[in-house]
Amino acid sequence: MGSYSGLAREAIRRCRLLAACTEQPGHITRTFLSPPMHEAHRMVRAWMEGARMEVRVDAAGNLRGLFGSGPRLLIGSHLDTVPDAGAFDGILGVTLAIALVECQPPCAVEVVAFSDAEGARFSMPFLGSLAMAGTPVLDPPVLDAIRAFGLDPAQLPEAAIDARVRGFLEIHIEQGPELAGVKRPLGTVATISGQSRAAVRFAGKANHAATTPMDARRDALVAAAEWIVSVEALARSTRGLMATVGRVDVEPGAANVIPGAVRATADVRHARDAMRIETVRHLRAQAQSIAQARQIECDWHPLCDQTTTPMDHAMVEALGAALRSAGFPDHRMVSHASHDAMILARKVPAAMLFVRTPGGVSHHPDETVLAEDVEAALSVGMKFLEGWDR
Amino acid sequence: MGSYSGLAREAIRRCRLLAACTEQPGHITRTFLSPPMHEAHRMVRAWMEGARMEVRVDAAGNLRGLFGSGPRLLIGSHLDTVPDAGAFDGILGVTLAIALVECQPPCAVEVVAFSDAEGARFSMPFLGSLAMAGTPVLDPPVLDAIRAFGLDPAQLPEAAIDARVRGFLEIHIEQGPELAGVKRPLGTVATISGQSRAAVRFAGKANHAATTPMDARRDALVAAAEWIVSVEALARSTRGLMATVGRVDVEPGAANVIPGAVRATADVRHARDAMRIETVRHLRAQAQSIAQARQIECDWHPLCDQTTTPMDHAMVEALGAALRSAGFPDHRMVSHASHDAMILARKVPAAMLFVRTPGGVSHHPDETVLAEDVEAALSVGMKFLEGWDR
Repeated sequence: MGSYSGLAREAIRRCRLLAACTEQPGHITRTFLSPPMHEAHRMVRAWMEGARMEVRVDAAGNLRGLFGSGPRLLIGSHLDTVPDAGAFDGILGVTLAIALVECQPPCAVEVVAFSDAEGARFSMPFLGSLAMAGTPVLDPPVLDAIRAFGLDPAQLPEAAIDARVRGFLEIHIEQGPELAGVKRPLGTVATISGQSRAAVRFAGKANHAATTPMDARRDALVAAAEWIVSVEALARSTRGLMATVGRVDVEPGAANVIPGAVRATADVRHARDAMRIETVRHLRAQAQSIAQARQIECDWHPLCDQTTTPMDHAMVEALGAALRSAGFPDHRMVSHASHDAMILARKVPAAMLFVRTPGGVSHHPDETVLAEDVEAALSVGMKFLEGWDR
Repeated sequence: MGSYSGLAREAIRRCRLLAACTEQPGHITRTFLSPPMHEAHRMVRAWMEGARMEVRVDAAGNLRGLFGSGPRLLIGSHLDTVPDAGAFDGILGVTLAIALVECQPPCAVEVVAFSDAEGARFSMPFLGSLAMAGTPVLDPPVLDAIRAFGLDPAQLPEAAIDARVRGFLEIHIEQGPELAGVKRPLGTVATISGQSRAAVRFAGKANHAATTPMDARRDALVAAAEWIVSVEALARSTRGLMATVGRVDVEPGAANVIPGAVRATADVRHARDAMRIETVRHLRAQAQSIAQARQIECDWHPLCDQTTTPMDHAMVEALGAALRSAGFPDHRMVSHASHDAMILARKVPAAMLFVRTPGGVSHHPDETVLAEDVEAALSVGMKFLEGWDR
């Protein structure tokens, strides 16, 4: 195990280097095909080329490095971040995939750095992996962003993986408290929980805050606030349900103007698909009833509905065996967060290895990893590659 | 009266022309010393010079045109707007002041186009008139904006009016439903209601929306939402009170991240100062108690506290006489909205003439005026100037 300590430190160092490619100086914010993604690509490309990979950027902005040829295992994660992110979410899976190739694995490997998993730019996640699964998002703003980055949307079909890709392995920080709680460095993901996202728009009427009597107002923000409070109340009273309003935009957004319109997002997770779908239906009805009582319009737009996805049984077992063979307990777990592996699983066998997240803190600048856990992930990854024979 | 019809149409046309100077194409948004204010100044300066005024921009960005010399009456209003504004709020008072000078009044007049009354850029209103009243706002971001516009903050003291200014007259749209309700074109403002503004910041902790159990969250947005609902409830249950949350900014602001911090504004108006002050105290305590129950921090920053300001008795009477002499009823009223006249009243006698607002709609693109009401305002303004002898 000691032999991976230098590579582990380098993988962590590279995550910190990539953190400097940001839209917000002093914070880590790098959304889908934003300008700093060019600089991130230059750095990752150099590391890939240093490891003798053949490198290309596909039309969805995924940076892909091929080591070897013929049937291959896809390994990687995403390069984009949420706003004001930590340095490791997604990124660590990219630098670890490169480190594994630097160890000269006995099989062909394609390393992928997905362009988008967080969906922070267009509130639609997985723009990168969806294209690789053959179902690219073709919304005009997304296509405009692809063109603005210097890529050609007409080539999106060529981003799709073909029969030479025999499986997908994603190494990712857990982003939750489970592994830290049981004091284990790594976990094998058995299932990825489903996720729904929606955007809701409340439209009332803007007017002067000083001259419009309270009973003559159609204030879109108070309607949204009432709904936000009800979203939390429902989630708190339903076991296993997580529901979050993460984004709110107020128009026109001035202290002395009654808000005329508010856009907000809803993010809903539950391990049981039926419960998640029922929750979304309920939140939508709630928004509409609050709006109606206030003579406000309410539009609901589903942005994403991912069903709960089991990982590939044989790959999970092989990963478990690699863990035991490297001297670690095979801790099986559910991922509550969504990941690119969920999308790729539609096309190829997929598996995920989780790395402990100290304090369970993620999507926050305090997000971190332990060097020993990263070293452990490398040793397990190599054991896994040594056993890979598809 | 018929003689003012062409000037009235021109004053309206100029408001529409100025609407094209905007930060947001397709909308009217022109905040304190924003880039489009340069273009607005070029247009207004040309009209002032056309009316033989001597024109300067003071260090607070107020555009000022002097007609005549010696003791003078200051007439004007503001050139800045709220976001997505109408074309007449403030602007009409500027174009009408120029129109009055074009009628060759029998006294010296200084026309002023204030740089800021709405406070949309820094959430602090009246940056222009405060400087003219001798109490400029010296916050670093404001000074930076002054420099960025090409002005010198060191010259702010010279923006202050001196003893040659003998009074201030502001013509402004009502922005409320009163004159439309009583079917009168114009109103004489007897008093301007007090106003308080504050910014509140709720600080919890950002974390992953999928992996953080509901009972382990410190969601700043739900705290803010609970408070926003309570602000409305208090205002609805208190006669004559208007309380508005107009602006909300969520950090980091992504669908899959629990909001770590939220900034919001509160705008409070009541004709009685004691009730306004008591309301602000109550809203602040409410925010703190909601935050405390959620283990969230709460900071409260007062941004502005304006006491209720009576207009100058003699000027109000003279304005009333001008109305009657021009053939209109002398409708006395309270302004619920704050105006530059409130600030200037600290230094000189001040009065306001309100122009009917169809539908009471303001701070909205639908804001409009009737040509006949603008014509009436011009005829009353000229009667007033003919009687001015200070």
